[in-house]
Amino acid sequence: MEQKHVGIRDVAKAAGVSVTTVSHVLNETPYARTSADTRRKVKEAAKALGYGPNRMAQSLRTKRSGMIGLLSEEIATTPHAGRIILGAQETARRHDLTLVIINSERDASDSTHRADVDALVDRQVDGILYATMYHREISLPANLSGTPAVLIDAVDRAGLVASVVPDEVGGARTAVQALLDAGHRRIGFLNNSDDVPATRGRLQGYREVLDATGVQFDESLVLSAVSEPAEGYAAALRILSADNPPTALFCYNDRMAMGAYRAAAELGLTIPRDLSIVGFDNQQIIAENLHPGLTTVALPHYEMGAWAVETLVELIQGHEEHALPTHYPTVLPCPLVTRESIAAPRG
Amino acid sequence: MEQKHVGIRDVAKAAGVSVTTVSHVLNETPYARTSADTRRKVKEAAKALGYGPNRMAQSLRTKRSGMIGLLSEEIATTPHAGRIILGAQETARRHDLTLVIINSERDASDSTHRADVDALVDRQVDGILYATMYHREISLPANLSGTPAVLIDAVDRAGLVASVVPDEVGGARTAVQALLDAGHRRIGFLNNSDDVPATRGRLQGYREVLDATGVQFDESLVLSAVSEPAEGYAAALRILSADNPPTALFCYNDRMAMGAYRAAAELGLTIPRDLSIVGFDNQQIIAENLHPGLTTVALPHYEMGAWAVETLVELIQGHEEHALPTHYPTVLPCPLVTRESIAAPRG
Repeated sequence: MEQKHVGIRDVAKAAGVSVTTVSHVLNETPYARTSADTRRKVKEAAKALGYGPNRMAQSLRTKRSGMIGLLSEEIATTPHAGRIILGAQETARRHDLTLVIINSERDASDSTHRADVDALVDRQVDGILYATMYHREISLPANLSGTPAVLIDAVDRAGLVASVVPDEVGGARTAVQALLDAGHRRIGFLNNSDDVPATRGRLQGYREVLDATGVQFDESLVLSAVSEPAEGYAAALRILSADNPPTALFCYNDRMAMGAYRAAAELGLTIPRDLSIVGFDNQQIIAENLHPGLTTVALPHYEMGAWAVETLVELIQGHEEHALPTHYPTVLPCPLVTRESIAAPRG
Repeated sequence: MEQKHVGIRDVAKAAGVSVTTVSHVLNETPYARTSADTRRKVKEAAKALGYGPNRMAQSLRTKRSGMIGLLSEEIATTPHAGRIILGAQETARRHDLTLVIINSERDASDSTHRADVDALVDRQVDGILYATMYHREISLPANLSGTPAVLIDAVDRAGLVASVVPDEVGGARTAVQALLDAGHRRIGFLNNSDDVPATRGRLQGYREVLDATGVQFDESLVLSAVSEPAEGYAAALRILSADNPPTALFCYNDRMAMGAYRAAAELGLTIPRDLSIVGFDNQQIIAENLHPGLTTVALPHYEMGAWAVETLVELIQGHEEHALPTHYPTVLPCPLVTRESIAAPRG
């Protein structure tokens, strides 16, 4: 491993700058006066030479460990965890930080959450990301204070910690607008029955965009159910068998839409000719492989993970002004992903 | 946090043992002469008192960091990563180890893989898990030697590193046996077209179990395709439209089975009355939500993650004799998960 013998002096020489400048750039010293051009030159020289300072030594020098922790719940059972982790991890890598992941069950006790935070603090992580796997309001473990922290897909009830969440209202507006644009006016909504921010936000978006288009809200067109395929199937069967059924369905998520596809098939309705459907989540294995492909709205999981790490780095470096205000979560957009499940209503 | 004031003496007193014994037990000193009963007493006392030694201090004392690294590929795009990580992580937690995860793309360059290993070695991890997200033969980065390491879902071409893989042959035997037990004798196999261990192993299992039952192998019943729903659909349509079609299909994975369901529906075949199907993977969102539910074979992802950590701990503690031989991978079983897609053939 000849790379081991490359030193900071070699990098300074190659970049044509002082050793101090290399140190400032590679350690990302807060407020060091180096131009973007100099930083680029130093980083390119360090990369070309394969210069990576020993982290443990760096940690003793700067009192930083070069690690950030991700506390997440339900990593194994949610389709969303992967993209949050990927966004966080690729961003961390760009900042030369290593991501330490600790997973807990959704229903883990408060003491488990406190123990997880302690484990990360004991390992001297520079900061902590706290991710829930669906959009929720939470109370944070008390021992999280004192360490820079950012919430992903969650809002701190106490309003003290920066957080990033999906634009549930805007995403629902986008989804329903796509149905309105195709000419639909009788649009059913299969909503989730859990009282969570996504349920409330998506209903609000549905109502807002109908209002804006001058379509009267009809509460008989909104059904609530468990947000899984079997329950989506039952709800779709009910609403589509009623008198004066809707010509289009907005489904709370792609899993409920999967159930709606089955209900449509059993009722002899061809999608999108007889019934248009739009989902939410862009859960790939479902949305791509339903037949026809499901038009849906994407949750910005990768983007939330990336945003959270960028914000955490600002906090760690003491640039709090970029990370504030913390009382309001940062809201990232949910864009439409167009496939083949929307067409004009018949007749 | 009054727990911070609890010391090793308090634990020794509560457990009725010496401070040295507590140290041996909590640091898992190799070959220390402590009985299982003593270890249990010490651990219970430490847990009850909330005694967790500061890891950085422990690291300086024992030259262990209390961290193990997981290098994995494609964490975000595979449905399998989650359960490997969960198995590894829950097992690591039981050993009071923190799991550090570094993700790379499947097609990352050799230098990226070397850099990932360097990042973990720089952080002084005690050992490294190297996980691929489908069963493969790989060449390991050279800089991995010198650190205890275990492969998950992969086999080291050089045969130097312990590894754990699924029993592809046995899993296929189990799947096809379920169709034979229901009375089928004309069983199609939609195989993957990639030349990977699972393709070869599942074909071998299919042939073995037909042989064992005295059913003649018919190569016209085996089709190869890309292992995704669209290609599974096309292959199923072809084999089911042929003269003398099979009464049952064994699909390489649940995604291909998803395509076979669609082909059956278009041909007016009701599953399982007119056609039985068995999959492979137990990819939950598909297998549970196809209608009827898909009988399939589970890949032991959680178990492989757990096995790998147990083996890594043995290696770290110097009990290599428990982790050898490394030339042959450890093979874990793939059990049948019975749902509703198999019935007796008609007529």
